Amino acid sequence: MLGKYLESTKEKNALIHCLTNYVTVNDVANILIASGASPIMADDKAEVEEINSFCQGLYLNIGTLNSRTIESMQIAAKKANELNKPIVLDPVGVGASKLRTTTAKSLIENHKLAVIRGNITEIKNIAHGIGTTHGVDSLAGDEGAYENINSVIELTQELANKLDAIIIATGICDVISYKNQSYIVRNGHPKMSKITGSGCMLGALITAFISSNPEDIFKASVAAVMAMGIAGEIAFERMSEFDGNSSYRNYLIDAIDNLDVNLFNARGRYECR
Amino acid sequence: MLGKYLESTKEKNALIHCLTNYVTVNDVANILIASGASPIMADDKAEVEEINSFCQGLYLNIGTLNSRTIESMQIAAKKANELNKPIVLDPVGVGASKLRTTTAKSLIENHKLAVIRGNITEIKNIAHGIGTTHGVDSLAGDEGAYENINSVIELTQELANKLDAIIIATGICDVISYKNQSYIVRNGHPKMSKITGSGCMLGALITAFISSNPEDIFKASVAAVMAMGIAGEIAFERMSEFDGNSSYRNYLIDAIDNLDVNLFNARGRYECR
Amino acid sequence: MLGKYLESTKEKNALIHCLTNYVTVNDVANILIASGASPIMADDKAEVEEINSFCQGLYLNIGTLNSRTIESMQIAAKKANELNKPIVLDPVGVGASKLRTTTAKSLIENHKLAVIRGNITEIKNIAHGIGTTHGVDSLAGDEGAYENINSVIELTQELANKLDAIIIATGICDVISYKNQSYIVRNGHPKMSKITGSGCMLGALITAFISSNPEDIFKASVAAVMAMGIAGEIAFERMSEFDGNSSYRNYLIDAIDNLDVNLFNARGRYECR
Repeated sequence: MLGKYLESTKEKNALIHCLTNYVTVNDVANILIASGASPIMADDKAEVEEINSFCQGLYLNIGTLNSRTIESMQIAAKKANELNKPIVLDPVGVGASKLRTTTAKSLIENHKLAVIRGNITEIKNIAHGIGTTHGVDSLAGDEGAYENINSVIELTQELANKLDAIIIATGICDVISYKNQSYIVRNGHPKMSKITGSGCMLGALITAFISSNPEDIFKASVAAVMAMGIAGEIAFERMSEFDGNSSYRNYLIDAIDNLDVNLFNARGRYECR
Repeated sequence: MLGKYLESTKEKNALIHCLTNYVTVNDVANILIASGASPIMADDKAEVEEINSFCQGLYLNIGTLNSRTIESMQIAAKKANELNKPIVLDPVGVGASKLRTTTAKSLIENHKLAVIRGNITEIKNIAHGIGTTHGVDSLAGDEGAYENINSVIELTQELANKLDAIIIATGICDVISYKNQSYIVRNGHPKMSKITGSGCMLGALITAFISSNPEDIFKASVAAVMAMGIAGEIAFERMSEFDGNSSYRNYLIDAIDNLDVNLFNARGRYECR
Repeated sequence: MLGKYLESTKEKNALIHCLTNYVTVNDVANILIASGASPIMADDKAEVEEINSFCQGLYLNIGTLNSRTIESMQIAAKKANELNKPIVLDPVGVGASKLRTTTAKSLIENHKLAVIRGNITEIKNIAHGIGTTHGVDSLAGDEGAYENINSVIELTQELANKLDAIIIATGICDVISYKNQSYIVRNGHPKMSKITGSGCMLGALITAFISSNPEDIFKASVAAVMAMGIAGEIAFERMSEFDGNSSYRNYLIDAIDNLDVNLFNARGRYECR
């Protein structure tokens, strides 16, 4: 059971340094608090090293990157590596512009990342960008559909081995790979794709979980993905007639706030391959 | 009936490139998703052209403009014009500072805009700024009150003709003018002015609607204004004793998420002059 | 009774110029509106003087400061001083980085501030930074616990005298000091610390209250702190089984929107020493 990873996240109050986009930053902050962690958003190059030095983890999200914050991300990541703080990268929109692709590539090549989380398209683009030879084009569709699961597993494992990082591809089901092992999480709800920030919130949550469970960051990542998926289900179940995506967003964060180990263990649906 | 413009917006999943303020950006993103569209926020000058090239529309909002993003807006607008993507400008606070006035004026003069949406004060200031001769000072009050409706119609039509753009002045009732025709929409609720971002959300919604209905962007704009107004009414109707403006904001976005064509056609209150 | 300060805030619709962090800016805007005020976020150095000139108060929050916005804060504060507009400083994270400490110190030394609001740690760090001799290290814990109340009173009064400003330290109970007088407010709820932005929202609320009550900004500050605390209680009372911190955030703002003088006077718990 993976419940203990949730439990220690709730207890340890890890401080998470976030350089993230301004679209979903408030939700990222609130879901971190809901998980038991605390957020610190600090993106000026003059302070990111200092701030990082007393945090437990670093979350990098390139959703609204710009030349100023890219430089800050590089400095923060370098510091986090020096101090052995885990880094989670959320390569939002990688492949959509040279700036995003170059930035993601540079962050990946210059620093040791603990986790890269993206949707299937983003993970494919990362793989392309760093020259992975796996036939990613053979992936019909970008949603991690059940029929493609083996391709997703192969791709993420190849990338995981190449980068010595945990690779997480989220979609209809979620694949979390490290070395030659993959977890498949089947929690979640389609409504999660109807709000902005599901991915960003998950990226932050993963940072909280691995920062609180340094002894096993692979399983802690799986637990974070599962927690998000379960929250997505619970949030949907409580929706009433007039509720839509905005209320759903609140319910999602609420569900992380209220999630306890028993519920987590009872609802978690995952397998290991 | 204008329901078909809502219907195609819900179906087409238009990608909307937004350069918008950081105050209401999350609400803007969520209401775009609620409408069936998808948001992309990208404001670095190094990527706005690329991002814009695969989007269906461009939303520019000067609510928290700065020298960096102003340059990005100019570049994005130029690209959108080259590629014939419709541009919607939300000249937030134009007239309140030289920076805003100059920026709005420059965006208007240098690019072909599809729609300019503002409150009456902003639209008046735009008219002043570009030398419209209509006696805008004769407009008693800035709320688009019913008694001023003819003045608002005249002003917006003059501006529409001068700029060859759809001009939308929102207030107690909303006026949407193009060439010598005006629609007046009488949906909405005063509570909409008690949250931040009603205008920004509407601007984004208009971008979604016209990008999804390129064959008739005038009527699509009217439909967007009507959708927002109806959502404002539905949101108010579901408020309970302890709900205030923050819940109202959620309900407003929820209502767009749940809005269907029948409800839309049944509740829409508009006339054409 | 302090209800009259709430009443005039609700009535006067003061315009509040905010240079605040991008994490909680939307909540700051919505709580200002809920209180009866109106927010204007403007942070480009080219426009902050003009914007400030037609506002009633200035709210400075260094939560996500950067070199660009620091300069804008200095310019805005200088203008506000020239025009006798009250300034509220929220020194978020002061002490956590040299950038924050230097910025807060510089804002304090170069401008006349009406109010500085922080948690106990931040207020202690301010005191350290400007060389206050009070034994702040003797404060066991940073939560303003009841047993430390006398130390907090001494510290804030010393700082208040030194800076000729109202000093507010918030925690389990809140201390508002000016010259040799302190108010202690015992409203609020622990859940307020489980969302991002409680402090930022309070800082903005204080700005609204003092800008609307220039004849007695000390008592107006106490009223603002009390309003926030009462809202925190009301928000908690309406939480249902599945609600968590995200819904709580909405309820908090809602409660300010619905707060009336009778409820305010009935629920307020404060004393003066």
